[in-house]
Parts: sequence; structure tokens; C-alpha cells
Amino acid sequence: MTDALSIARDLIRCPSVTPADAGALGVLEQVLTAAGFTCHRVTFSEPGTADVDNLYARIGTEAPHITVAGHTDVVPPGDESAWSVGAFSGEVKDGFLHGRGAVDMKGGIACSVAAVLEHLAAQGGKPRADGKGSISFLITGDEEDVSINGTIKLLKWAAERGETFDHCVLGEPSNVEVLGDTIKVGRRGSQSGTLYVDGVQGHVAYPHRAANPVPDISRLIVAISDEPLDHGSAQFQASNLEFTSVDVGNSAYNVIPGQARAKFNIRYNDNHTQASLRELVEQRLARACGNRIRARIVWEPSNSNVFVTKPGPFTDLAVSAIEEVTGRKPELSTSGGTSDARFISSYCPVIEFGLVGQTMHQVDERVPVVDLEQLTKVYRGILARYFG
Amino acid sequence: MTDALSIARDLIRCPSVTPADAGALGVLEQVLTAAGFTCHRVTFSEPGTADVDNLYARIGTEAPHITVAGHTDVVPPGDESAWSVGAFSGEVKDGFLHGRGAVDMKGGIACSVAAVLEHLAAQGGKPRADGKGSISFLITGDEEDVSINGTIKLLKWAAERGETFDHCVLGEPSNVEVLGDTIKVGRRGSQSGTLYVDGVQGHVAYPHRAANPVPDISRLIVAISDEPLDHGSAQFQASNLEFTSVDVGNSAYNVIPGQARAKFNIRYNDNHTQASLRELVEQRLARACGNRIRARIVWEPSNSNVFVTKPGPFTDLAVSAIEEVTGRKPELSTSGGTSDARFISSYCPVIEFGLVGQTMHQVDERVPVVDLEQLTKVYRGILARYFG
Ligand SMILES: [Zn+2]
Ligand SMILES: [Zn+2]
Repeated sequence: MTDALSIARDLIRCPSVTPADAGALGVLEQVLTAAGFTCHRVTFSEPGTADVDNLYARIGTEAPHITVAGHTDVVPPGDESAWSVGAFSGEVKDGFLHGRGAVDMKGGIACSVAAVLEHLAAQGGKPRADGKGSISFLITGDEEDVSINGTIKLLKWAAERGETFDHCVLGEPSNVEVLGDTIKVGRRGSQSGTLYVDGVQGHVAYPHRAANPVPDISRLIVAISDEPLDHGSAQFQASNLEFTSVDVGNSAYNVIPGQARAKFNIRYNDNHTQASLRELVEQRLARACGNRIRARIVWEPSNSNVFVTKPGPFTDLAVSAIEEVTGRKPELSTSGGTSDARFISSYCPVIEFGLVGQTMHQVDERVPVVDLEQLTKVYRGILARYFG
Repeated sequence: MTDALSIARDLIRCPSVTPADAGALGVLEQVLTAAGFTCHRVTFSEPGTADVDNLYARIGTEAPHITVAGHTDVVPPGDESAWSVGAFSGEVKDGFLHGRGAVDMKGGIACSVAAVLEHLAAQGGKPRADGKGSISFLITGDEEDVSINGTIKLLKWAAERGETFDHCVLGEPSNVEVLGDTIKVGRRGSQSGTLYVDGVQGHVAYPHRAANPVPDISRLIVAISDEPLDHGSAQFQASNLEFTSVDVGNSAYNVIPGQARAKFNIRYNDNHTQASLRELVEQRLARACGNRIRARIVWEPSNSNVFVTKPGPFTDLAVSAIEEVTGRKPELSTSGGTSDARFISSYCPVIEFGLVGQTMHQVDERVPVVDLEQLTKVYRGILARYFG
């Protein structure tokens, strides 16, 4: 059976808690191979982490090439005795398919596979009736944990093979309340750093022989916190910097310390790149320091760059397909947490549209069977418009 | 022998590292008893500290009553192999008496005892030829360490016996460069506290749901640091507040913390009492907080109140005696660290005048023999003027 509910149930029955695969990728490989896809199972390794399996499957050799991304790994079930049904049973009860991954995101993957199979059947086994076009699946087993041996390496592996992608749909649970309310079209970037201020240690009784870094780092924190980084952009709310800690660690009341440090995190929008953002903050720091305060920033490494897929033909066809099926005009949102879309965005425009996220990562994660049917129809509508 | 050098040498030969007495108080008791003093040895105890011996000796029963204060305990010698002579040998070499305590302050005590004996001999064995007046010694063995079983308790013990003091000379090494350059007439008070600022913990991605205490405590630190507490007084430099630490201890870059704290110490002059100082700082804090910031101060206990012996007849006679012997007009200073004068000041006016402090607490602590002779003459001059 290759309908969305059957595929979703088969996937849920594999207890693929990161980094275990437990047969999940094999379920997809079998269905896709039967439909004419060329499948590659790729295992990635990194010292200190578990090896993780990934799947790349493609049908067609020509552009336009749409890729469907996702992950088959799931977060642990938590207290299994608290579940109404077995966390990996895939049981349908009162119109809901239950189980870990039902919405995040085995259900979403099942809908996309079912939609692609229906689409191919309608086009004579090809993405487009004229034989052009390609459809692929980029499926990882390493998204819910460290995300080291997953999508980021699979994209690199594909690029080295000469694969190019024109557009991507990532089936993460994007909807907040009801199917059709939200497409995710971007994420703010995240950049952390530590501010160090050097003074001169001394005795509190002789402050003129010392230089106290505590009031100075306080001045810098106020100056840097108070000036907005921007006032938002078309797709994003304003960027924001928060100091999350300030520390000296001096337990002696009679000693003026020699150094103070403060940690901060920035969530930034598409007014900035990582490089321009760092430069902006460094400039403001230099201005606040003047010639007197000795301070420096040590930046943390970050692979959470800002990205956005701007409104245009690709988002329009997704909105149109969603409206047709659900009767709702989805919001193009850039809020919320991180996903593998941050990696995919370096290769091609990416949108996220999947199920409703409400029960994800919770006990009794579940999806209405009707949502699986509707999402499958949405994906079919996207493919029809993409190749139409 | 009751000259200063002999007494000093006898004292140095007792290795009276706090809390050990090692015979030091006995040296004084013997000499003073022979000169007609009534001597009391008083031992004080406190859970968690060693018992410590103290000596109170008085001659005369009537006012005016001048008391000479001091301590026979010394700091440890450190690396004894680094000393030119034995740290407790009391050896005289090249015109210097060597040994731990030579200047801090067995030498000073020896000079005061020698001066008192000479003065009594000249007055027919009494403080004043008419039989009036009293001289006493308040000598503790607990000054260099925790100062719990020493002067503070000896003063209380004496008060409970009905002893009253009119003036006190404390023989700590008060001079900076050369004998006669400095009388210490007071000390700033010291008061420490911790400032707490409460915010609301949250995720950095949703700052509007949190209240970050880090910029707020920074604002308070700047506001409180920047406004001077005063502009000094006749006897003192300006009071000063230093923040010595600011701490949050949040290691997570994605969490806005719920609380921040900062430690501070204030060195304050006689424009303030401990109570008025606390009130002033609390008022400024409240003003800086407005209705928005939730902050509070927890004050540390303190027994280092500000005190000063104002210029007047008592300081004048000391200055006059010093000028006559040394040719120098001493500065009336209120700078430098703490001493038992902070306790004595609650009972009577106190000045500190002793040897030159340069080698105190160091390897090869030593005093020029000529300084012992000169300081003895200064003390004799003070007694002559006091009872003249
Ligand atoms: Zn997910
Ligand atoms: Zn001393």
C-alpha cells in the first residue's frame, strides 16, 4: 500500500530514535525504487558521534529539479506508560494516527512520497509528460540531535556528485493551529559571542592604582543593548541582541578584578549577513569604548545563518495549492526555531510546509488521518503546478 | 635592662606567631610589674578560634588616663632560609635590629615601655609628680590574624571593670619613609554588599516574554558607580564605591537568565555613618530602578566603622614631641589599611605613631637602632606634655 497513511504507519513502526534507523529508510527505499527512483544509501561518520544513515533518491535527469527533504529520525518517546497507545504502534484511533513522528515528520514524508507516486502515475511514470524534470528525496536520520551526519553532509555529497537543485520543499510541521495556516519561508540567523573587558587588578582601598572593568563592561552592555540593530525587514521582525550572562567570579570584597566578561546571543534578520553583523557590533563596541576601555569580542562558530525565500513564483504556487485544498491562505512566516532548511538554503530556495506541529515532541503525538489526506493533496497540487 | 633595644630583643626572641604567645607578654609583665604596674593577664575564647592571651597593666588610679596599645603577635617569618639572620634571633647587625616584629610592632612596644619607665623614674615613680594621672598598657596577642580574641574583647573587659580611657597612643608602624613623617589619626570605614536584580527567565528567541536582568544590573552599576558619594572632608579623601564582581553564571547562550548579582565595597569617610551611608546608597538605587527594575541590596556585617581623631590639643602635643625629636612635622593621615584603632576609637581618641613600616611583614624585617632611640624620645615627649 502506497497511500500516505500506510507509509506513515510503516515508518512509525520503526523505532528510529536518533541515531537509530531501525528500518525507516528501507521503507522509503523500497517504495521509491519500485516507482523508478535511483536510490543511494549514504552513511556519514564523525569522531565523537554515532554513524548515521541517509537516503538520496532521484527520478529524472533534467531540470527543473525539485527536491523533497525530510528526516526519519524522531525524538525519544519519554515515559511510554503515559501514552494512550504504544509510541511506536502506529495505531489509528478515533480518526487519529498515533505515534512518535506522526507529525514530526514521518507523516509529512509519507504524504510527500504518496503525492509523488500519484503524480508520476498521472504523468506516465515521469516527473513531466515530456520526459523533462526531476524529483528527488533528501532524507536524513540525523536531524533531531546534533545534526552533524545528516542533511549538511548529504547536500555536500550530492553537490560533489554534480547534483543541482532548483527548489526544495521541506515537510517539517510548519502549521501552528490548522493545516494551511503557515508556510515557513526563512529563519533568523543566530550568532553568539563573548565580550571581554580588561582592567587593572588592585585593592579597593587604592582605586587610583587600579582600573575597574566592572563599571566599564556595564557601560558597554548598556550601550550595545540599547541601540536597535535594525527595525525589521519585509520578511522579518527586528534583529535582537541579548546579553545572557556577565561574570567576574571575584569572591574577595577588597580586590578590584582585572577582567570581566559577558556572553551574548543575536537573532538577526536579512538586513545582515553573519560578516556584516559582526562588523556592525564591533564598530559599536569600538565607539562605546573610545580610547579608554580595552575590550574585545570572541565570536562563537555558527552555522545558523539567516535565510529567506522571498515571495515569488515558487511561494505563489505553494500558496495556490494550499488554498485550493484547505481554503486557507497561509502566512509566509519566518518565526520559530531552527531546522535543516538553514543548510538547504545555501543550495536552492526552500520552503517548509507540512503537518500541524501542536503534538510534536509530546506524549501522544498524533495526526488526524484527514490531515494526511489533505497534505498529500497539497503536495500533489504543488507538483502539478511546478511541472505544469 | 629596660632600654628599648633590650626589651625589643627580648620580645623578638619569643616566636609569638598568632595565636602563640611564646612568652612575649611575660617579658612585658615582668618589666611593668617591677615598675609598679598592676598587671592582668586575660585569656579570651571563641568557638572555632584559638584561645588568645592579653595583657592589661595600669599605674595610677586617677584621670587623666593615657593608654598605650599594641600587639605582641607577629605574622609568620615565611621562608626562614631567605633571612640574613634568624627571624627570631633579635640580632643587631650594621646598626639594625633584625627579626620578625622589629617594626610591627615589638620595636614600637619596647620604645613605649622604655619611655614610660623613664618618665615614671623622672616623676618619682608616678605618672605625675602630684600623684594624679594614670598610664596603662593594652597589649593583645591577636591582631595579625582574625582579631577576634584581642583588643575588641580586652576593651569590653576593661569597660566592664570600670576602666575609662581619656586618650590612646597605638604604636603601629605609622611612618611611610622616615621616622616622623606620619601620624595616623583615622581610617575610612569599610562596608560591603551585594546587589541583586530579578528579571524573568526566558528564551533568547522570545525576549518579549522575558525580562533580562543583565542590561538592568549594568544600568544600576553605572548609575551607582558614576555619582560620587561626597567630595572628601577635612581629614579624609572622598568616599569611594567599587563594584568588585558581577555574576550571572548562565552557560546557555539561548537562555535569558532570571537573576543577576553584583558585589561592591565602599570605603567611606566621616561625612557618613554606617547607617546614613546604607540609606544613601539605597536611595540612589531606588531612584535608578524607577518603577521598572526589581533590585535589592544585602549588606555584609561590618565592624570597620569610619573614625577620626580631629586636630586639637592631643594631636598638637604629639606633633610637637615628634618635631622636637626628629625635626619633622608629621602629616595627620587617614589613609592605609585597618588596625585595632578602629575598636579603640569607640572608647577614646586614638592616634597611631610608631616606627617606619617599610620592612613589615617581609623577609629581613628590621629597624635602625637609632629609630628605637628616637621613638623612645618621642614617646617621652608625649608623656611629658600630656602630664605637664
Ligand atoms: Zn522535525
Ligand atoms: Zn601591626
